[in-house]
Amino acid sequence: MASADLVELAKRRGFFFGSNGAYGGTAGFYTFGPQGAALKRNVEEAWRDRFTIKEGNREIEAPTIMPEAVFEASGHLDGFDDMLVECGECGESHRADHLVEDATDVEDAEALPGEEVEALIADHDIACPSCGTPLAGEAVEDFNLMFRTDIGPGDSQPGYLRPETAQGIFVEFPRLKEYARGSLPFGITQIGPAYRNEISPRGGLLRLREFTQAELEQFIDPETDEPPIERVADVEVRLYPATEQEREDGDYLETTVGEAIDEGVIGSAWVGYYLGVAQRWYDRVGVDPDRFRFRQHLAGERAHYAADCWDAESEIDGDWVEIAGFASRGDYDLSKHDEYGDDSFTVFKRYEEPKTVERATVDPDMATLGPEFGGDAAAVADALETLAERDPDAFEQDTVTVEIGDGDDRETCEVDADVANFSIETVTENGEHITPHVVEPSFGVGRTVQTLLAHAYREDEVDGEERTYLALEPEIAPRDAAVFPLVTSDERLTELADRVAADLREAGLSVAYDDSGSIGRRYRRQDEVGTPFCVTVDRDGVESDGEATVTVRERDSAAQGRVPVDELADELAALRAGDGFEGLLDRYEPVETDVETN
Amino acid sequence: MASADLVELAKRRGFFFGSNGAYGGTAGFYTFGPQGAALKRNVEEAWRDRFTIKEGNREIEAPTIMPEAVFEASGHLDGFDDMLVECGECGESHRADHLVEDATDVEDAEALPGEEVEALIADHDIACPSCGTPLAGEAVEDFNLMFRTDIGPGDSQPGYLRPETAQGIFVEFPRLKEYARGSLPFGITQIGPAYRNEISPRGGLLRLREFTQAELEQFIDPETDEPPIERVADVEVRLYPATEQEREDGDYLETTVGEAIDEGVIGSAWVGYYLGVAQRWYDRVGVDPDRFRFRQHLAGERAHYAADCWDAESEIDGDWVEIAGFASRGDYDLSKHDEYGDDSFTVFKRYEEPKTVERATVDPDMATLGPEFGGDAAAVADALETLAERDPDAFEQDTVTVEIGDGDDRETCEVDADVANFSIETVTENGEHITPHVVEPSFGVGRTVQTLLAHAYREDEVDGEERTYLALEPEIAPRDAAVFPLVTSDERLTELADRVAADLREAGLSVAYDDSGSIGRRYRRQDEVGTPFCVTVDRDGVESDGEATVTVRERDSAAQGRVPVDELADELAALRAGDGFEGLLDRYEPVETDVETN
Repeated sequence: MASADLVELAKRRGFFFGSNGAYGGTAGFYTFGPQGAALKRNVEEAWRDRFTIKEGNREIEAPTIMPEAVFEASGHLDGFDDMLVECGECGESHRADHLVEDATDVEDAEALPGEEVEALIADHDIACPSCGTPLAGEAVEDFNLMFRTDIGPGDSQPGYLRPETAQGIFVEFPRLKEYARGSLPFGITQIGPAYRNEISPRGGLLRLREFTQAELEQFIDPETDEPPIERVADVEVRLYPATEQEREDGDYLETTVGEAIDEGVIGSAWVGYYLGVAQRWYDRVGVDPDRFRFRQHLAGERAHYAADCWDAESEIDGDWVEIAGFASRGDYDLSKHDEYGDDSFTVFKRYEEPKTVERATVDPDMATLGPEFGGDAAAVADALETLAERDPDAFEQDTVTVEIGDGDDRETCEVDADVANFSIETVTENGEHITPHVVEPSFGVGRTVQTLLAHAYREDEVDGEERTYLALEPEIAPRDAAVFPLVTSDERLTELADRVAADLREAGLSVAYDDSGSIGRRYRRQDEVGTPFCVTVDRDGVESDGEATVTVRERDSAAQGRVPVDELADELAALRAGDGFEGLLDRYEPVETDVETN
Repeated sequence: MASADLVELAKRRGFFFGSNGAYGGTAGFYTFGPQGAALKRNVEEAWRDRFTIKEGNREIEAPTIMPEAVFEASGHLDGFDDMLVECGECGESHRADHLVEDATDVEDAEALPGEEVEALIADHDIACPSCGTPLAGEAVEDFNLMFRTDIGPGDSQPGYLRPETAQGIFVEFPRLKEYARGSLPFGITQIGPAYRNEISPRGGLLRLREFTQAELEQFIDPETDEPPIERVADVEVRLYPATEQEREDGDYLETTVGEAIDEGVIGSAWVGYYLGVAQRWYDRVGVDPDRFRFRQHLAGERAHYAADCWDAESEIDGDWVEIAGFASRGDYDLSKHDEYGDDSFTVFKRYEEPKTVERATVDPDMATLGPEFGGDAAAVADALETLAERDPDAFEQDTVTVEIGDGDDRETCEVDADVANFSIETVTENGEHITPHVVEPSFGVGRTVQTLLAHAYREDEVDGEERTYLALEPEIAPRDAAVFPLVTSDERLTELADRVAADLREAGLSVAYDDSGSIGRRYRRQDEVGTPFCVTVDRDGVESDGEATVTVRERDSAAQGRVPVDELADELAALRAGDGFEGLLDRYEPVETDVETN
């Protein structure tokens, strides 16, 4: 199916649509309609179940607005830019690097300096896509992608909408480590909005200005903490390593997580562990394994601090789309906040046994240094201390030479070794402060939703008629079931259908009710939004001598079984949890229909 | 318990804390820690279960950034202001109306014009609370509470962080009505962040700059749609009507929803219905009914378009705090967007029977009017048409008199009745376009969380020792259970405890694991965060001949039962769903402990 069809279906059936249509629309913003919001929530809930609850991690929820100091530390204020060129004629803004990539052989224009991009625009006579005016001579500028606002009255306290949920976790590490009682490893998750003020947003959910991330920050001691690899060692994955991408006839590597780690294809065991967990999760929520791969970042793509990085990519309409990233970020994030912030972003790592270490110290005799060096005496004392730590042997001479001051003020001072009062002390240390490393699986929720819709889309024939349906997993589908009275002219049917719908809702199931149009049309409507089971109240069900029954129809096969009303909620809950429909057909009377699916 | 104690407990135990502490903190922003985020999510999930799924409503998710046009229509751009006074000396900003209310007898300074507030500041020598400098002479200005930002490069497209989630629903009504197939009533819900750039944020979760709302917009035809009152008619509520608030010795009215509607205390049946649904919901999640009331807005508090409005209020530390509002908003919201937006915010209401109506029309003979009235001919024709609708009898005379033009240009024109070609046509109409009315239950999620913590806080003695605990409902508590090995020196215990924790997580339960410190101390730690059940793996449990067992301890009573490991997940799931612990003690061997609670 083409992306445009999916976008059309998404709008028509209430999955998602461009926001603020009544006001001309706002590029880069989408609203999830009733079906889409339910689908998205189910994806988030399945993610939470896997990456928070089952992994024993803990979730937090931080504000979306954060103060400037956070992004000075994280580097976003300086470096979170795209290349902007504005048309002098019509005033429209464009991504300069994209224009150059579209018009030339250059593949990664973003990596070029601005002047070079300006030159390429001029050399290739690149024109404004909106009005056709040549862009030669227009300046290419860095445009920061964070949305800026002011916190409180006036402009003295700039705030930014977070460009990733992760910073809300990193910045609170001093408290989070307390909740973990200072002990590594521990993982913190967050699901929530993130923002990027894109210059040119793309269609659908792929490049939005506001989107939802599900992120996990795994804090580890890189020297001692190992992931429980055995849990995922035999998970089969399709890898696309950097080396293969760089080869002319590069190919996928079909392997297991365990082997890929053993053979060094995946550099970080923690990254490998989460690729395995993610692969299983993608299978569970309904990503087509034939349209899915893990692609390693090329050296040029990686942030300078990232040791190894893999993307989960899904194929949508012929394009490979990044839907998650798995990065080993070293101690970059926490050391930056440790440097800029006013709190400790380290943990105290207790040694198994206390260590006895020898430490060189000085205790300079200020009564001697003062008269000799005047205002420089304190600087000389500091220099002696630094020297003692760096080169204790220097104090074995009669005189010790140190340098004080910077640049032109630099001067060399000679001090009697006796005056320094040098000694070696033996101290016992119980541990040391270390900066944890971070491994970050980061998921795009909207992109996952778009993938699931694209991969679930099916066309077939039922009863000689073409139909389209969404083969969404029951756990993920927007509604658990739909309830129909076969006809509305018979009160026994509408009353029972009302009661069945109410009972199912009372049991916590999400249920649609539809009494309009032919039964075939109602089935199609539910098929098209992926409702896995349709419950129909018919005359046979209310006229039989015993208990009331209803028919339950499975979406993909269109097969039907007749189930007693009293057992319906339990059966649907079991189907939602993953029980197959064949089991239900074994236990209950199948309904003969004329329907054939092809 | 005092609010300060709650805030301290909330921070120490990971419920919530002021954000960005490492950067000096950011007033008005709180981060939910692991316990708080889980508690908040459970509240949201319970709300969704009740107000979306069980009510048969549908949830959407709209962006938090919206374009300016939306807030021109909604009135927020013009009217969503607080009164600001800035200290000329220290530059600090303050709520002018609050300063006046604190220093004078004035109770609702916000309702006064700015000049009057300036005069009160001068007359009462009100000084800057930050630096003590008198504020007399400083201007009192309107400060818009929306956070502003720019969408895309440049400042040509201003955007605002939504001050309420509701606008994201109203603005998409043209699509939402399609999903409801044009048929009223239907309800749309949304849970998500909202923003108010408060001048002076207050402590805790009570007045934040970023907070979470759970809102339901119920769209109704006010002439025909009735709520299913019978479902909640007998729900008992404590009402504080406006009339009682205005009386010297005003009192609460303890009544039922049905009676309050019948007697007209609650003006709107839809508002009454949702008060009943909300009362049951508050009971379910653990709001103390003795510290809860519904307070009606006084005439002066209501927005001009609101027919009736009630707040749910909870008592925290002696103060009554608004935690939800229930407003009958008429057609205000949709008619504003219908007026400002470029789409239809009405629904077509089909008559039961097509109606035949007579309609007066004219078909003026322009060949006559043209020469006679020249450039005014079209205006004369329009005036004839308007007159035909308003006063058909006028066309029974030989000449018809109409007025054209405005103000000074106004002139009277006489037209031959024949020229107007007046006639009465009979037309059949199938229905009419109506603007639905809105009933809006709007919940503050953070304030509900703060209420639940305050109302669940308990102090007692267990085994002669004082303890504090949170008597949170199992459905709402951050964790479903905690698992402990009694001692870590026995591998049989630690291995089984690991397995039990993993099995419970696999079953979808949220589980804490703790092996540090004495068992008593571990119980206290869980009591303090409201974990309802603690599972301990002890030697008796692994040494018995049969299957392995564990003890399960209930938080409030500290009673314990011994449960087979294989049945544990089901038992805990049943307890979470509301089964009492006494039932478990009946089914399994109780554990004799020395523990007594007082």
